[in-house]
Amino acid sequence: MNKKITAIIPVSEYTNAKTRLSPFLTTDERKQLLQYMLKDVVKVLKTEIDEIILISKCDEVLNDAKKLNITPLKEKGNSLNSALIYAIDHVHKTQPENTILILPSDIPLINENHINDIKNLSLTEDVIIAPSSGGGTNLLLFSNNLIQPSFGRYSFFEHKKQAKNQKIVPYIYDSFLLSLDMNIPTDLGELLLHGKDTYTYNYLEKLGVTVESIHGKTRLNVKKEKK
Amino acid sequence: MNKKITAIIPVSEYTNAKTRLSPFLTTDERKQLLQYMLKDVVKVLKTEIDEIILISKCDEVLNDAKKLNITPLKEKGNSLNSALIYAIDHVHKTQPENTILILPSDIPLINENHINDIKNLSLTEDVIIAPSSGGGTNLLLFSNNLIQPSFGRYSFFEHKKQAKNQKIVPYIYDSFLLSLDMNIPTDLGELLLHGKDTYTYNYLEKLGVTVESIHGKTRLNVKKEKK
Repeated sequence: MNKKITAIIPVSEYTNAKTRLSPFLTTDERKQLLQYMLKDVVKVLKTEIDEIILISKCDEVLNDAKKLNITPLKEKGNSLNSALIYAIDHVHKTQPENTILILPSDIPLINENHINDIKNLSLTEDVIIAPSSGGGTNLLLFSNNLIQPSFGRYSFFEHKKQAKNQKIVPYIYDSFLLSLDMNIPTDLGELLLHGKDTYTYNYLEKLGVTVESIHGKTRLNVKKEKK
Repeated sequence: MNKKITAIIPVSEYTNAKTRLSPFLTTDERKQLLQYMLKDVVKVLKTEIDEIILISKCDEVLNDAKKLNITPLKEKGNSLNSALIYAIDHVHKTQPENTILILPSDIPLINENHINDIKNLSLTEDVIIAPSSGGGTNLLLFSNNLIQPSFGRYSFFEHKKQAKNQKIVPYIYDSFLLSLDMNIPTDLGELLLHGKDTYTYNYLEKLGVTVESIHGKTRLNVKKEKK
């Protein structure tokens, strides 16, 4: 049986996003960074996933979804999780059998192998969870409403616990590249090392952002050179 | 054909190791941390790998290898890479056909699935490389001396380049858990989140090391509480 997967990408408002990358990047640069990351994620998703929905409160983000030929859905709810539940209900109204795949827009190192794996795994697995750095979830797939989205602190463990409560052993999709969401400067460093074929890389390179391996409090020193 | 794999684990001297975890951990605590991490790595390797060699300059480390029932080999050479080349030659003198698997001792989140995967992949792949955070290599497998170990800065890319120069497409083993070597406090945080079944976790817990998810310059705040 070929299960149909609907991907849902929640995107925050462009203003005040990725504040941990400021003052490293300006407000406008952070907005453009978000746009390029979304472009990378959508490009990879499109290789295997037919229906891709973007949810956001922000009209500018929803408009970008249209430009990328994915479905914009105005966010309803007071939190990320209630917005996701609304979006899932929206999908299931017309396609009650669809498997849901939730992933953020800030994981530009996602590649076609990941999506191919996930699609194949979805034939036999009811719940798939990929960890992010710091205890979060960077990819969540589930069928039959088995999981209620619980994004936020320690969400990887929340999602695992929910599966367990349903007597399901979740498939842990253990990927370094998927674990890297772009929140702090060293994340951009990993992107510069591993993401040479992404739109995000080209944008950071254009901005003069460079990375150097160091032996210090962090592993990578990420700088923005004045151009 | 069942290829035989010899694992080589290089371990630095206990003194002056893991200096980036000081003053977070004392010299003696860092030594014990290394011992518990080695114990975790060896335990997992033993599920699939028959021959495990530990190389070190340090007699105390070599003595610990004996206690763990793995083969100690006194390090020769002026650098990690020359020591590894010496160890590989040593293996190939008596077992010229053996595939070589090099991995560090500070990746306690390695699990049986990884080793099972690597063993299966080794049947069809000549070169397997797993990235570490920051551009390094946390697992390197190769047959027929195809790779000359080039650990150090950007070693993931050095090893990839060497494979390419030999017209080989290396298999990139993309694992979050394997990418986590324990060098800076946030690494210990990931271990506390994901490594509950390890000796290393129990030791850190005994020391009073705790982790908390934060929204700051890092994702995790790792503290050591006075006991």
